[in-house]
Amino acid sequence: MDNRPIGIFDSGVGGLTVVKEVMNQLKNESIIYFGDTARVPYGSKSKHTVTKFSAQIIRFLLEQDVKAIIIACNTVNSNCIDELRELFPNVLIEGVVESGVKMAIDATSNNKIGVIGTEATISSGKYPELIKQSLANSEVFVKSCPLFVPLVEEGWLHHEVTRLVAKEYLESLLNKQIDTLILGCTHYPIIQDSLQQVVGEHVKLINPADETARFVGTLLIKHNLQSNNKANYEFFVSDHVRQVQQMAEMFLGYPIHQVKKIEIEKY
Amino acid sequence: MDNRPIGIFDSGVGGLTVVKEVMNQLKNESIIYFGDTARVPYGSKSKHTVTKFSAQIIRFLLEQDVKAIIIACNTVNSNCIDELRELFPNVLIEGVVESGVKMAIDATSNNKIGVIGTEATISSGKYPELIKQSLANSEVFVKSCPLFVPLVEEGWLHHEVTRLVAKEYLESLLNKQIDTLILGCTHYPIIQDSLQQVVGEHVKLINPADETARFVGTLLIKHNLQSNNKANYEFFVSDHVRQVQQMAEMFLGYPIHQVKKIEIEKY
Repeated sequence: MDNRPIGIFDSGVGGLTVVKEVMNQLKNESIIYFGDTARVPYGSKSKHTVTKFSAQIIRFLLEQDVKAIIIACNTVNSNCIDELRELFPNVLIEGVVESGVKMAIDATSNNKIGVIGTEATISSGKYPELIKQSLANSEVFVKSCPLFVPLVEEGWLHHEVTRLVAKEYLESLLNKQIDTLILGCTHYPIIQDSLQQVVGEHVKLINPADETARFVGTLLIKHNLQSNNKANYEFFVSDHVRQVQQMAEMFLGYPIHQVKKIEIEKY
Repeated sequence: MDNRPIGIFDSGVGGLTVVKEVMNQLKNESIIYFGDTARVPYGSKSKHTVTKFSAQIIRFLLEQDVKAIIIACNTVNSNCIDELRELFPNVLIEGVVESGVKMAIDATSNNKIGVIGTEATISSGKYPELIKQSLANSEVFVKSCPLFVPLVEEGWLHHEVTRLVAKEYLESLLNKQIDTLILGCTHYPIIQDSLQQVVGEHVKLINPADETARFVGTLLIKHNLQSNNKANYEFFVSDHVRQVQQMAEMFLGYPIHQVKKIEIEKY
């Protein structure tokens, strides 16, 4: 038993979709969330910069005495999870990418899998690499979709513009007859309905957060780290508290009242 | 005479539209440009964070021995130019906002002026404040347009989606019968054609960069700081060199080959 919290972080608010799944599935687990709203987005930035920012966040989370860390950001996960595990060998670090891969492999029938994400996630090549390791005869087709995050943050979830953008981005993947599409960015589940309309019912959409929460639950049991206490949730950001409070409802399903701001550059 | 360079900075690549005007109008002036591509965008961030990032950039530019600084970023300009002038009293600091205001006042016939920009620029209230100081009986209508920057950076300059987004954003301003619209973000001149189609020929679009370059030219003469040398241009960023090289053509009209990366957080 270990009643310390799990640390979950993202470049901004998107990681709250992962928080939501962890809350749902691991009801006793306390969570400390950090969103790097002063430096968001990471998706257009270099591996060097993303690694540096993430290491600062992990130092902050370790100072809060977390027992495990979930990288709720595909960009960080696909660019530098190995480097971060090397830098911080004494804490469990899990991400969303491996869970997304596992779900997609279970879901596909024709072994044609699509992956969408930020520019940095797609150019890292991490998803295709992991999918091919587990399913050698698969074909993986990728597409970066830089407009989806600003569309979600604008709240245009069911807007004609969002469907038009999705059509343009997803056309090349649909032409390849994919039957499974990994939502490789934590913002994308928020526009899942619009995306499903565009790809049609025969394409399965994969939200890695679901399996991530399940996998972390298994890990906690395996290492005897699960909590038997009442869960407590704390939210930290590096900028605007109000903005995150407003967005929380969309990502988490309910508003957050207590959000604290810290100076992440000091870590 | 003073052959030292002018420092020009922006949160990213948008400020290159200002560089272009300075190059055109002040042909002997050398330029050192800095784009904060590791922490872009500023438009959704708080005044505190934008001020801190900008002060770091000015320290870097002063280390390069610039004789004057142009803030080629409406967000910085409208949130903290006064604070920055107080922090750095020994260097001329000029921005784009006052020039935009001057142009709009000259251009309007019915005294109904629209302003579009990032969330942080619009919520600062700086444009309306300055317009009303000079033209008391004017009416100013504002609208933040957070999707324009990502649309420009995606290169969708003449895309149906861009026009649809513009229609939605600008409808409320057009309903107020504005005859002049300030493009209060350095990215927006890049989609000027699409915006003009949406607002119609009777609405004048104001690109503050034009007057900014003219005004800085006058200031240099007034303070006897103008250069009589051949101009030299240097470009610095805080992340991805390649990305800026690719985007330069769109903003500047020609590619940049030499871009240097620095660690801006050290300043």
